[in-house]
Amino acid sequence: MTKTNQGNFFESFEIGQTFKHATPRTVTAGDVALYNAIYGPRFALQSSDEFARQLGYARAPVDDLLVFHMVFGKTVPDISLNAVANLGYAQCRFLEPVYPGDTLRSESEVIGLRQNSNGKSGIVYVRSRGFNQKDATVLDYVRWVMVRKGNLDAPAPEATIPELDAAVAADQLATEIPAIDIDALDTELSGSPHRWSDYRQGEILHHGEATTVEEAEHQMATRLYQNTARVHFNLYAQKKSGFPGRLIYGGHIISLARAQTFDGLGNAFHMAAINGGQHVAPTYAGDTVSSVSVILKSEDLPGRSDFGALRVRTMAVKDDGLEDSFKDLEELRQRNSVLLDLDCWVLIPK
Amino acid sequence: MTKTNQGNFFESFEIGQTFKHATPRTVTAGDVALYNAIYGPRFALQSSDEFARQLGYARAPVDDLLVFHMVFGKTVPDISLNAVANLGYAQCRFLEPVYPGDTLRSESEVIGLRQNSNGKSGIVYVRSRGFNQKDATVLDYVRWVMVRKGNLDAPAPEATIPELDAAVAADQLATEIPAIDIDALDTELSGSPHRWSDYRQGEILHHGEATTVEEAEHQMATRLYQNTARVHFNLYAQKKSGFPGRLIYGGHIISLARAQTFDGLGNAFHMAAINGGQHVAPTYAGDTVSSVSVILKSEDLPGRSDFGALRVRTMAVKDDGLEDSFKDLEELRQRNSVLLDLDCWVLIPK
Amino acid sequence: MTKTNQGNFFESFEIGQTFKHATPRTVTAGDVALYNAIYGPRFALQSSDEFARQLGYARAPVDDLLVFHMVFGKTVPDISLNAVANLGYAQCRFLEPVYPGDTLRSESEVIGLRQNSNGKSGIVYVRSRGFNQKDATVLDYVRWVMVRKGNLDAPAPEATIPELDAAVAADQLATEIPAIDIDALDTELSGSPHRWSDYRQGEILHHGEATTVEEAEHQMATRLYQNTARVHFNLYAQKKSGFPGRLIYGGHIISLARAQTFDGLGNAFHMAAINGGQHVAPTYAGDTVSSVSVILKSEDLPGRSDFGALRVRTMAVKDDGLEDSFKDLEELRQRNSVLLDLDCWVLIPK
Repeated sequence: MTKTNQGNFFESFEIGQTFKHATPRTVTAGDVALYNAIYGPRFALQSSDEFARQLGYARAPVDDLLVFHMVFGKTVPDISLNAVANLGYAQCRFLEPVYPGDTLRSESEVIGLRQNSNGKSGIVYVRSRGFNQKDATVLDYVRWVMVRKGNLDAPAPEATIPELDAAVAADQLATEIPAIDIDALDTELSGSPHRWSDYRQGEILHHGEATTVEEAEHQMATRLYQNTARVHFNLYAQKKSGFPGRLIYGGHIISLARAQTFDGLGNAFHMAAINGGQHVAPTYAGDTVSSVSVILKSEDLPGRSDFGALRVRTMAVKDDGLEDSFKDLEELRQRNSVLLDLDCWVLIPK
Repeated sequence: MTKTNQGNFFESFEIGQTFKHATPRTVTAGDVALYNAIYGPRFALQSSDEFARQLGYARAPVDDLLVFHMVFGKTVPDISLNAVANLGYAQCRFLEPVYPGDTLRSESEVIGLRQNSNGKSGIVYVRSRGFNQKDATVLDYVRWVMVRKGNLDAPAPEATIPELDAAVAADQLATEIPAIDIDALDTELSGSPHRWSDYRQGEILHHGEATTVEEAEHQMATRLYQNTARVHFNLYAQKKSGFPGRLIYGGHIISLARAQTFDGLGNAFHMAAINGGQHVAPTYAGDTVSSVSVILKSEDLPGRSDFGALRVRTMAVKDDGLEDSFKDLEELRQRNSVLLDLDCWVLIPK
Repeated sequence: MTKTNQGNFFESFEIGQTFKHATPRTVTAGDVALYNAIYGPRFALQSSDEFARQLGYARAPVDDLLVFHMVFGKTVPDISLNAVANLGYAQCRFLEPVYPGDTLRSESEVIGLRQNSNGKSGIVYVRSRGFNQKDATVLDYVRWVMVRKGNLDAPAPEATIPELDAAVAADQLATEIPAIDIDALDTELSGSPHRWSDYRQGEILHHGEATTVEEAEHQMATRLYQNTARVHFNLYAQKKSGFPGRLIYGGHIISLARAQTFDGLGNAFHMAAINGGQHVAPTYAGDTVSSVSVILKSEDLPGRSDFGALRVRTMAVKDDGLEDSFKDLEELRQRNSVLLDLDCWVLIPK
């Protein structure tokens, strides 16, 4: 028996199986600085301790997606080391805010299994959760991933497909976010005068920023998250397998797009939930990523007079100046340039 | 009306107009580590809390140029998103030292305007200031920048050109720098035995280090500063506009050159002022940057027995080993290899 | 006399000569984050303050190799600025653990000299030590390096070659490591169930991770260590000298390999000593680095019931999937793909 990790193959997963993932990780101001350097977010709440305190936070919380990536990264060695493709996310809720100094760990439970008809792989559904050092849940999400079989003769498990909501319900949003003092919101400092009630359904936002992705950037980010998926780091093996290069971690594109949404959604301080997300096409170093959002829905949050929620669909494209017109995001979605189609809830002061 | 930022065009600026810029930013040890990794400065004061305390500081202050870049970066979305070119700096004074944990914000005032004769653009002069969380001024400078007109039919404003000093006066230097204990200066640890009185006017210093700039490095730095100028990040658009690649933020070259001046000016712990600076030619990834300085002047500082000032002209060149001789920096300035011509005051213990 | 550093040439070194190196450096959480982003280590002790406290540490210590690189980097301007090649390390002991906030400085003593028969260069042996702000030794090692002569007419010194042990003795290991509570070791969180007694001599571990090195990554790392060796940064000069590119700092490969050994040696929390190391071939950006280890020896540590030691030989290769078999590391060593051959002691709980 080898002591090295060969990863789990499809046939070794069982419904109800749980994983307590390595490696726990104390989040630091250093991680935050790297996140800022790699994606360039400009939301004032996460950027300034003073601004955060004025609103009622103890200090600037960590970017929600940095938390997502750290919790997600830990699941890779157990869940997706032998993955063919990451297929989707659902019911992803951001819960307790994370601050520098907090220590994160992750757990997962297998909630669905379905072998593919070719008998060579299957889909594994896991519910993963991130916890801080006080065992408070910071993140809770479902993802499904196609995993290779190691032994093709292993019998297929009974198919179990979890029922997943198309979107997180409004009363499940922002449950752990502290009440903020919206009168203390300085919209000059935050960079946008627009509050929750200023957005209307169907409104399209062409975010003005674009970024060309570099190998060193996505590798450094993905290693910072302790995500060990080999396709992101091993050019030699990628070329041998017929790929043009290293595949960039899908979460990297989510973070780039989220940072770009500052332009138009400058006060959308929190990502509250990811309802669903598709990595439509792979991204490689050298691609220039830009993004567009549409407001799908505006929702009042029960019991909260400070934050409202906006359901936003953000599409990231590559090497597409988006100069020519498109009627809506459904039309844009048909283009070959689309990389990411993300449906999420953001929180924005009233 | 879109909620995204189209930036200001020349015709929308008015004399006396003020801007309170987004996004406030708490400077952390993470930012300092990135700055060190990207530029490699070795000045002991900024590198070691112990060394700083021995001299009389509370702890190691942040590199002066990191402060400059953070204050500058905030001004970009309001002042220079539609800039054709950054033309110059003047009267740039470094004031209150910045420490990790401080929160920076920026303000600007329009102090000059002159439409170009072609009617398509004009020059905007702004005085920008950076403040810490106690509202103490950390930086104060003038820059002028050529900005496109959005509406070519807009009338030209009355031309107003501010009078700018060729250099910051000695009594305006180091006004907020604490008194240090020069007897406690350990010149083995600082890496140089040379103090203020050891330098003479006209002395040329060939700094031995050179660095080849990488895309990931300048992008990470520029995003760390939350500088959103598109030319630094968008390869797709740059190529469409006929550029060979992303233009590197001019301040990146200033920081590289400043770090290189450690070799020869190891005790020049502070940049006290930038009298003027020209980005003579654009820099692209792959260029190897090295630098040379000349001592323009040595100045005693009124009322200070600890620090003296040296006025230094530093020239950065690319892909030039500087093996062949040049009489002085005026002669060097004629070369095609010159990227930067910077005139600044540095502080060095007596 | 110039004030810039020309470095020391072979003829200027003398037996017994000591150097107190610049620049002292306070290690921060920012440095740790960069180290994590560049190499991707996943050892729980260094990753989580909570995990570290549970074992009995005050908080997560800094990666031992980050300490090595910082101590080493400081020696470069005095010892190896005019080096032709770094030849070897011996008797390298990791002593007092380092924590964020500690300030490191380095000293060296010349302990051996031997001019080469060609009269153009010679070998300098130095014993270097790193200290924290309490003057506790954090690192102690010998290295030898071939240094050019500046004046070919300078007489050869009497040859002095220090006697160096082939390996650090077991009673010299872990002398400053605090006693840990091995019952508190959570092997799910640490990522490996294997303890000291699970490893047997001759056991080979094929570490599953591989990483393609990028210019920005090794440059940022090497600058973070304030290592100024020119071959790592100056593409222009490298090309003029006939090299295909910038030579990557050898310590970069050691850190990559060490991080990869997590897969198979997940509880080997500390590197206790480097017995010897050879940089068999140069590494360039674009090379994909992977590694294999063999357990050379297992050693009980006198007086310690918590940690045992494993002597491990780790070989890093480039662009080699290691798919074809090799009997042992001696056979592997014959390949052209070998970059690094490292012999070290690691500590792992009993």
